[in-house]
Amino acid sequence: MIKANDKNLSSWIPVPENSDFPIQNIPFGVFKAKDGNIGVATRIGDTVIDLFKVGQLDYFSIDAAVFNSDKLNKLMRLGKQATRKLRDEISAVFNTENQEAKNNSALKETFYNINEVEMLMPIEVGDYTDFYSSEQHAYNVGCMFRDPNNALLPNWKHIPVGYHGRASSIIASGVPIHRPKGQQKPNDNEPPVFGPCKLLDFELEVAFITYDGKPLGESISTKEADDYIFGMCLFNDWSARDIQKWEYVPLGPFLAKNFASSMSPWIVTLDALEPFRTESTVQDPEVFDYLKFEGNKNIDINLQVAIQPEGTDEAVVSNSNYKYMYWNMNQQLAHHTINGCNIKAGDMMASGTISGNDESAYGSMLEISWKGTKSVTMADGTERKFIADNDTVIMRGHSEKDGVRVGFGEVVTKVLPAK
Amino acid sequence: MIKANDKNLSSWIPVPENSDFPIQNIPFGVFKAKDGNIGVATRIGDTVIDLFKVGQLDYFSIDAAVFNSDKLNKLMRLGKQATRKLRDEISAVFNTENQEAKNNSALKETFYNINEVEMLMPIEVGDYTDFYSSEQHAYNVGCMFRDPNNALLPNWKHIPVGYHGRASSIIASGVPIHRPKGQQKPNDNEPPVFGPCKLLDFELEVAFITYDGKPLGESISTKEADDYIFGMCLFNDWSARDIQKWEYVPLGPFLAKNFASSMSPWIVTLDALEPFRTESTVQDPEVFDYLKFEGNKNIDINLQVAIQPEGTDEAVVSNSNYKYMYWNMNQQLAHHTINGCNIKAGDMMASGTISGNDESAYGSMLEISWKGTKSVTMADGTERKFIADNDTVIMRGHSEKDGVRVGFGEVVTKVLPAK
Repeated sequence: MIKANDKNLSSWIPVPENSDFPIQNIPFGVFKAKDGNIGVATRIGDTVIDLFKVGQLDYFSIDAAVFNSDKLNKLMRLGKQATRKLRDEISAVFNTENQEAKNNSALKETFYNINEVEMLMPIEVGDYTDFYSSEQHAYNVGCMFRDPNNALLPNWKHIPVGYHGRASSIIASGVPIHRPKGQQKPNDNEPPVFGPCKLLDFELEVAFITYDGKPLGESISTKEADDYIFGMCLFNDWSARDIQKWEYVPLGPFLAKNFASSMSPWIVTLDALEPFRTESTVQDPEVFDYLKFEGNKNIDINLQVAIQPEGTDEAVVSNSNYKYMYWNMNQQLAHHTINGCNIKAGDMMASGTISGNDESAYGSMLEISWKGTKSVTMADGTERKFIADNDTVIMRGHSEKDGVRVGFGEVVTKVLPAK
Repeated sequence: MIKANDKNLSSWIPVPENSDFPIQNIPFGVFKAKDGNIGVATRIGDTVIDLFKVGQLDYFSIDAAVFNSDKLNKLMRLGKQATRKLRDEISAVFNTENQEAKNNSALKETFYNINEVEMLMPIEVGDYTDFYSSEQHAYNVGCMFRDPNNALLPNWKHIPVGYHGRASSIIASGVPIHRPKGQQKPNDNEPPVFGPCKLLDFELEVAFITYDGKPLGESISTKEADDYIFGMCLFNDWSARDIQKWEYVPLGPFLAKNFASSMSPWIVTLDALEPFRTESTVQDPEVFDYLKFEGNKNIDINLQVAIQPEGTDEAVVSNSNYKYMYWNMNQQLAHHTINGCNIKAGDMMASGTISGNDESAYGSMLEISWKGTKSVTMADGTERKFIADNDTVIMRGHSEKDGVRVGFGEVVTKVLPAK
């Protein structure tokens, strides 16, 4: 049992009802305050806590200098035992029972209200990998583009299929994107055309962030995988469907994806998500030994997507759940390293679009509009098959059990017109 | 005209005949000396020059601290004008006519013989992209796996096809690799199997390394591209053909490639390669405006691959040339950023396998052995269709014109048995 997860804990910092950030969460992020101060923080309720300042008050066993940074990578390089201990120490400081801390006015000097800070890109992402691990999503795509009777490709149930994506264009929640331009081939019998993407889409994903792994040439087993995963975030893997269709054979998606991916700013540790583990999907056919695993490796995380056109309310277009994954993170990491590929602190591995069994749980407009054959209605009465200019896409995610809710907050991105 | 390229220059440092490193080269790399000293260096002949020490003697306009690093990224972040000026300043110091420098005994203290140092991985690679830009290679692959009458896919002459690869596993020359393990499906009618790769291959490539680009959302034109390219190296894009075949549909190569890629240790600047520009391939059909370019954008670089089994001499298996590329670097970079994708100092973009028109110029064993249907003979009489355990693969590259030879040296990698 990880101490900081105790469901009976409460904090002397106020936590609003239905907050994603009770004392059982203790996520990590990077803030920028109005006074220019930038550093590593955690969050309890709506209070952002400057960990460098707390560290200078001698509450932690690790050197406070690690928090005096605009990225979490230094912290992650310390490894799982250190970050787990840190989370327990933070929990102990802000626990209701810690009267000393509650009465220490210097601690109040480490606080910002969430509305007073900007949350920055928290990770220097080394390598970014995107998996394709939701069976319903792979099935839907196979039905639309191939054959409903052979929707899944032959390798799909043997391999947690993945591909490398672009790290440089991963951005924090709040940063707007421009509609990408590129080549498309709308008509099979005519030459390709060039212009702004017409079929801009989100992909509802979550991503995990790794610690430093083993040297090149060594593998991480499914059993070891948890020790190499720091935490998770929400991940919107923006996709230009028309660009993708024309470019992706034979080497995979490229410009259709690498113009931007948006992540939520708080990294929720894998430790904080442990109480929400749930039964894994039964895998048939049997997988190779290196992909076998023990215990519950899926996680019950409620996921939601909303679209907000400019000047009106949002409309929820998807309610999905991370527990629907066919392949879990342990399998993804074991597969990624079975050939000796090395991982580093700050690598990100995204789940692939997470779609549930019915259409209210589909994780992309491609699926929701079934390849543009039907539309969803916005709050202002306009219709959407894909994402329009000036739409804002919002993703949310949280777990809940035994009265404790641990969440990610939001990843919010506005789409500006093509440049 | 870049001063440092003057063909009439000579150095007061001895340069052996046929050296890749005359004073017209001035490449950049990172060395480790036996005394533990690590830093940024250039090379003239067989002399490795510690640029931090030279900078401390006040020969350069930029701060010497930039050379006190185990990577070239700080230097690259200064941009093209700064690195071009630095190359001219280095050239001026070691030019035969600089009597002051020749007589300055402190400069001799900055020298190591190439045999006294280990050359390290010179770049912290941010993102790595691999293109697929040699027509003969794409044609050969298309013939073998699809149809000789429709060997090139429909997008190939419209798009400089590329995909994202793994940055963490790019290693310097001299670092051995282990044969990767993974899933393969040798028989179409039987289930996949797991084990060491049986069809291990090299890919003869070159790669370019970028400066910091523009902000996310902006594009780099073919005309601007040269200003964003720092230099080039040889690149062996190791490939596990059997793993690739089973995994790559629909999202592209993954474990078949990401176990290792090997690079030559000296980055030859694009400036040093300017004299070797050559006519570009005629592109038909006409490309979109954003891919049009002016001037000679191909470069005449002789490339060679040899295989050396343990305990015997090497056998040359390929003599190719970078001038054979259908798509040039300017087009690759313009395409990569046309959707607003951003680049950073230290990103690498590889050419894809470089194959010439006849089989002596094919850039992979897949093509040389024509999918394993014929073999090449080694110096010890053994045969190779792919790479065997304990083989060393050596790639070399150099340009030559008007009596000046500018080269890359070698990238040398030994293949150890699977772990």
